[in-house]
Amino acid sequence: MTTQTKRIALDAMGGDKGVDMVIEGAASALVRSPDLRFLICGDEARITSLLAGQPKLAAASEVRHAPDIVAADAKPSVALRAGRNSSMRLAIDTVRTGEAGGVVSAGNTGALMAMAKFVLKTLPGIDRPAIASFFPTLRGESVMLDLGANVGCSAENLVQFAVMGESFARSVLGVNEPSIGILNVGSEDMKGHDEVRGAAAVLRSGPLARQFHGFIEGNDITEGTTDVVVTDGFTGNIALKTAEGTARLYSEFLRGAFKSSLAAKFGYLFARHALTKVRERTDPRRYNGAMFVGLNGIVVKSHGGTDAFGFANAIAVANDLAANRTNDRIRDELARVHATPMLGTVASS
Amino acid sequence: MTTQTKRIALDAMGGDKGVDMVIEGAASALVRSPDLRFLICGDEARITSLLAGQPKLAAASEVRHAPDIVAADAKPSVALRAGRNSSMRLAIDTVRTGEAGGVVSAGNTGALMAMAKFVLKTLPGIDRPAIASFFPTLRGESVMLDLGANVGCSAENLVQFAVMGESFARSVLGVNEPSIGILNVGSEDMKGHDEVRGAAAVLRSGPLARQFHGFIEGNDITEGTTDVVVTDGFTGNIALKTAEGTARLYSEFLRGAFKSSLAAKFGYLFARHALTKVRERTDPRRYNGAMFVGLNGIVVKSHGGTDAFGFANAIAVANDLAANRTNDRIRDELARVHATPMLGTVASS
Repeated sequence: MTTQTKRIALDAMGGDKGVDMVIEGAASALVRSPDLRFLICGDEARITSLLAGQPKLAAASEVRHAPDIVAADAKPSVALRAGRNSSMRLAIDTVRTGEAGGVVSAGNTGALMAMAKFVLKTLPGIDRPAIASFFPTLRGESVMLDLGANVGCSAENLVQFAVMGESFARSVLGVNEPSIGILNVGSEDMKGHDEVRGAAAVLRSGPLARQFHGFIEGNDITEGTTDVVVTDGFTGNIALKTAEGTARLYSEFLRGAFKSSLAAKFGYLFARHALTKVRERTDPRRYNGAMFVGLNGIVVKSHGGTDAFGFANAIAVANDLAANRTNDRIRDELARVHATPMLGTVASS
Repeated sequence: MTTQTKRIALDAMGGDKGVDMVIEGAASALVRSPDLRFLICGDEARITSLLAGQPKLAAASEVRHAPDIVAADAKPSVALRAGRNSSMRLAIDTVRTGEAGGVVSAGNTGALMAMAKFVLKTLPGIDRPAIASFFPTLRGESVMLDLGANVGCSAENLVQFAVMGESFARSVLGVNEPSIGILNVGSEDMKGHDEVRGAAAVLRSGPLARQFHGFIEGNDITEGTTDVVVTDGFTGNIALKTAEGTARLYSEFLRGAFKSSLAAKFGYLFARHALTKVRERTDPRRYNGAMFVGLNGIVVKSHGGTDAFGFANAIAVANDLAANRTNDRIRDELARVHATPMLGTVASS
C-alpha cells in the first residue's frame, strides 16, 4: 500500500508528441514529488536512451518493453484485439496485477477506455465508467463528469456519476463535503428530461441529500456553484469544449486588443506580469488529467496534444487518486447509497 | 409590405427593468433606424407619460392599452389562460393581424413561447419552433439553435432547425451560403446518438448538402467553423450558458489581474481603450435578441435583465428578420427540402 500505490505506470508511446514528452513529464513530476516511482511501458531502447540523460528519473523507474503502439486513430474494438502487446495495454495490465497504483496515457481515448474496461472491469455497483476532470471556477476548482464516455445516460448512471464525482472531489480537490449539482436547462424541479429528474429524485432522498444542491445551469459550471457537476457524456463533452473554445476566443480578442495601438502595447508591458498569471490560471495544461472513474483501478487520460508540463500534471492527478484510495471511497459510498431503501429503483416522472 | 413590415410591436411591460427600459430602448433603436415604427402595448398612462419626453419616438409610435401583465414567474399554461389581456398577448396579436411585422418582448420566455405558438401557429412543415441567437466567433458571427425551447429533439426536428438556422444566418448575419454544422462529441460519422446521425444523413443528401459541413464539436462554436450550429434545446441551452459563464470567469480573472499590482494598474491605463473594445465585442447586450424561429410571425425574445442598449439590439434583430422576410425564406427552403425524395422519412442508424 505504501510504495506500491506511489508507483505509476506510464504509456510511453501515447500522445502526439511521443516518448520524449512522456519522459520529460515524468522527470518534472518527480522533481515535484520525489517519492514517486514509475513503471514505463514502451519501446525499451528509446526509453532507456532517454533515461540516460535523466539519472534521477532512471533511478526511480523500471522499464517494461512493449513492441506495439496503439495508433491515434485506431478504432477501440481493433485496438482491443490487436493491441495485446501495446505499451497502453501493458501499462494497464500492471494496474490489474498491482505492480502499479495507477496508469497515465496520452494515447487514443476510445482505445484506452475499451482496454481499461476489459482488463480492470468496473467497480461493483457501477454500470458504466465515466470521464471526470477538474477545472477553474470563480470560487476555486470543481469537477465535472461525464465528459464523453457515455453519449446516453439513464437516471441510474447519473446517480452513480454523482457518487464517483463526490469521491473525486474529496481526493483530488481536497473538499470535505463536496456539493453536487446536476446540469439542466433550469433550476426548477420540473425542468429537463426524465433522466435528470429521476437522478435528482434519488439524490434528494439518499445519503448524499445534504450535499445535493439540485439542478444547476451552464453558467454555474464556472461560477463554482457546486463542487461536482453531474451530466451525461454528450452534454458534458460539448460543455467542456465550449468552455475551452470561449476561453480561446476571449484570449484571442485580448491579444488583438494589446496589438491594436501603441498605447495598448505600452500598457501590455506594464501589465504583462499580471496577465501571465491569468494565462497560468486558465492554462488547460494545468487541468490536464481526466480520470476514467468507475473502474477497478486508477486510469488517467492525458490530453494527446499536451507537453511535459501538462503530462506531469496528469501524473500528479493519478498519484492523488491512488494515494487517497479514491476507489475504496467510491466503493464504500456506493454501498451506502445502495443500502438506503427506495434507491434500488430510480424514480422516473 | 413596406411600412407594415417596418412596424414592430413591443411588449412594454416585460423585463426586469420595466417600461422605462423598453421606451428608452425603442428611442435608441429609432435613432439608429429612423424609418422604424412601433406599436407599443401596455399600461397606456405610463407609456404616454414616458413618450411625452421622447417626441420623435411618440411620432413614430402607436400605443395600445393592455390592462394586464404576465408575471415573470407565471407558468406558461397559466399565462396562456389568464393573460388574454396582457401586454404580451396583445403585442403578439398585432403580428397575427398584420398590424406589426414582428414583436419584441423581454418578458417570461415560457409564456411568450406558449402564447406565440397558440396565436401564430407554426410554419407549414415545422413541428416545433426553436430559439435561435447569434454570437461572436473568431471569424465573425454565427447563429445557434435550439437554445432551449425543446429539451428532446428528433432527427426530423434537427433537420428543420438546420433549415431555419440557414435562413436566420442569411437574414440577420447577411451570409450568402451559410455553412451548417451539427453539434456532436466528435467529427466522425459514427459519433453521437441516433438523432444527430439521422439528421446528418438527411442533410448530407438533400438540397443543403453543399452547405452541410458535418459534425462539429463544442470548441467549433466560438471558432466559427460553421455559420449555423444545430443542436437540441438541452445541449444548446447548456452550451450557451457555459460560454457566458466562461467569458465572465475570464473577465473576472482579468479584472483581478489589473488590480494585482501598481504596474498592472498603470498598464491598464494605457490599454484601457483597447480593452474597452474587447468588452464591447463580447458584450452580451450586443447579442441580445433571440428569435423564436418556426412560427408564422417574427417573435424576438430579449433578455429579461437587459438595458435599453440591449433592448434596442433586440428590436434591430426583429427588424432585420421582418425586413428580410425570413419566414418566407424558411417556407421556400422547407418546400425544397421536402420536395427531395427520401427526405419524407429520416434515416436512423
